Amino acid sequence: MSDTYVLIHGAWHTGELLEPVAQAIRAHGHVVHSPTLAGNRPGDDRSSLGLTEAVQSVVDYIEKHDLQHVRLAGHSYGGMIISKVADLMPHRIARLVYWNAFVPLNGECLNDMVPAHYKGMFDQIAAASGNAVVLPFPVWRDAFINDADAALAQSAYDNLNPQPYKTFTEAVQLNTALAEMMIGKSYLNFQQDAAMPHSMPWHPRLSERLGLFRLVEGQGSHEVCFTNPTLLADKIIEAGRD
Amino acid sequence: MSDTYVLIHGAWHTGELLEPVAQAIRAHGHVVHSPTLAGNRPGDDRSSLGLTEAVQSVVDYIEKHDLQHVRLAGHSYGGMIISKVADLMPHRIARLVYWNAFVPLNGECLNDMVPAHYKGMFDQIAAASGNAVVLPFPVWRDAFINDADAALAQSAYDNLNPQPYKTFTEAVQLNTALAEMMIGKSYLNFQQDAAMPHSMPWHPRLSERLGLFRLVEGQGSHEVCFTNPTLLADKIIEAGRD
Amino acid sequence: MSDTYVLIHGAWHTGELLEPVAQAIRAHGHVVHSPTLAGNRPGDDRSSLGLTEAVQSVVDYIEKHDLQHVRLAGHSYGGMIISKVADLMPHRIARLVYWNAFVPLNGECLNDMVPAHYKGMFDQIAAASGNAVVLPFPVWRDAFINDADAALAQSAYDNLNPQPYKTFTEAVQLNTALAEMMIGKSYLNFQQDAAMPHSMPWHPRLSERLGLFRLVEGQGSHEVCFTNPTLLADKIIEAGRD
Repeated sequence: MSDTYVLIHGAWHTGELLEPVAQAIRAHGHVVHSPTLAGNRPGDDRSSLGLTEAVQSVVDYIEKHDLQHVRLAGHSYGGMIISKVADLMPHRIARLVYWNAFVPLNGECLNDMVPAHYKGMFDQIAAASGNAVVLPFPVWRDAFINDADAALAQSAYDNLNPQPYKTFTEAVQLNTALAEMMIGKSYLNFQQDAAMPHSMPWHPRLSERLGLFRLVEGQGSHEVCFTNPTLLADKIIEAGRD
Repeated sequence: MSDTYVLIHGAWHTGELLEPVAQAIRAHGHVVHSPTLAGNRPGDDRSSLGLTEAVQSVVDYIEKHDLQHVRLAGHSYGGMIISKVADLMPHRIARLVYWNAFVPLNGECLNDMVPAHYKGMFDQIAAASGNAVVLPFPVWRDAFINDADAALAQSAYDNLNPQPYKTFTEAVQLNTALAEMMIGKSYLNFQQDAAMPHSMPWHPRLSERLGLFRLVEGQGSHEVCFTNPTLLADKIIEAGRD
Repeated sequence: MSDTYVLIHGAWHTGELLEPVAQAIRAHGHVVHSPTLAGNRPGDDRSSLGLTEAVQSVVDYIEKHDLQHVRLAGHSYGGMIISKVADLMPHRIARLVYWNAFVPLNGECLNDMVPAHYKGMFDQIAAASGNAVVLPFPVWRDAFINDADAALAQSAYDNLNPQPYKTFTEAVQLNTALAEMMIGKSYLNFQQDAAMPHSMPWHPRLSERLGLFRLVEGQGSHEVCFTNPTLLADKIIEAGRD
């Protein structure tokens, strides 16, 4: 049976960077879209675009392509996006897949869920860079893509783009709390993901905000899209299927 | 060397459902029994049978077959059973294996170890169903057998039987606390077992009540008996051997 | 590219026991040293040697062989050693790898990081054995080498040597806290390592004292040097590379 997947990338990424994962899911007979969010596109005004515009770009994309029964997967920051998209168009969503992703309570912004030392670092960088943030390479290399060798860590880093900081500071308003939303939900957790410190982890700290959810896990870092796209594809299917 | 294993199934299950696991253990040269507990047999009075009768059915089984040096493994609710069986006949037990199983303190019932929302759900179902509980399919599918595809999730569910609720509410009296019991103990934890929420996990929350114990882990859900019986067999042997 | 690794064994071990791991790392083209610490050598006075002498024996070894750009990996107690060696000769160290190892704060001794019941057990054994400690076999078999079969558990145990207790009770003085040290750091965590109880785990409890660090994980016990040296070698390289 062919399912329809929409993959929502994380901060600093683009939909293009998820193409190897998308292709591996397509190899199982599914339809896969991986649009790039407003704010992460070439030429986007990174000083002003926020969560609202990024969410709207996905809503527009789904309506334009008239996608139905969508398995909507979000990575990291993408969890903010899929939460609000589902709130706006629940009838089009078959299942939500949070892949090491933020799960907001009503009224929270992404920064409300990260450790204080990250927020401090982001504040400083944004203030010096026109309200856009880039991740310092040492943090990327050791905390985000810890399972890559040095060459892949560098080449993947070179493909990232500055993140509009407003997407981290703008709160999301949810009409229905995620735990109450009548849509199937999965949390896909890669166990060596250390982008969040394990004393303040993705799972179960954020996953359990989903209420009843399906847990799927794999071995890998936050950036398994670069280090093991085939495994990631298998796990997204395990998380996204009925 | 041939060891003797007795496998004690969990709530809603039967010994028959563990037959694929038993066969995979036998393939390593061991003797394996997997009796069905009183309360889970066809025709059992599910409104009245409790923990005492279920425990006694295992004691009777072991005596009838005159089993010695038993590697006694319990799954989930089966942890209540093996704890009391070992308390009653320690001389027949070579090692206890708790496979994502409850580890009671003296005077506790199973319900004392589950989250409040489970207890509330069970109370409601039992009140409406002659004091027997069935697990709602959505909970089974996403929290218990999260690593199955939809077809296996359904076919396994169709083989479950209603659980006498008294087995969850009757306290166990232990003459010797498990941590003090002079029998080898292992805890076998499947890491994607989300039947207990991971903020209130099987391991180490319950495992450490065993005192000194051997930790064995695998990748899989609470229902790896259906999704990966061969892996389960290997892990039971790793946990149960000297 | 050939890197230089120095492997520092844990308590009760010797450098010789790490030879299978060293060889597997050498097979990838690297240079590997695994000296035996002062205190664990045949004929050492186990009643008097402490952390200072053990650290000095590594400093001397590195200077004598004039090793540069060292990837310095420490196992368990070896974490105490590499922390102080890096503090004394940071210019020679390319990266620190803590493999299920102690990460001390300034002024701490190893015993400050272990559960009270271990400290009580060690105190008793040391008092009865000329201030040296041996690990009781049941603890070794179930909590340290839980993934071995009985024969390997025994043969590995037979190769251990008594540990000078002063190495556990002597505090380490660090001029620079590890989190502030300008050297790359990795934490290698084997998930079934139950030498520390999981309610008081190696990771993240001790790993996060490193500040920014690279997390690498594997499946195995505290004694994966005996049970799976090839996997351990791969993981040390993943942790130790640039």
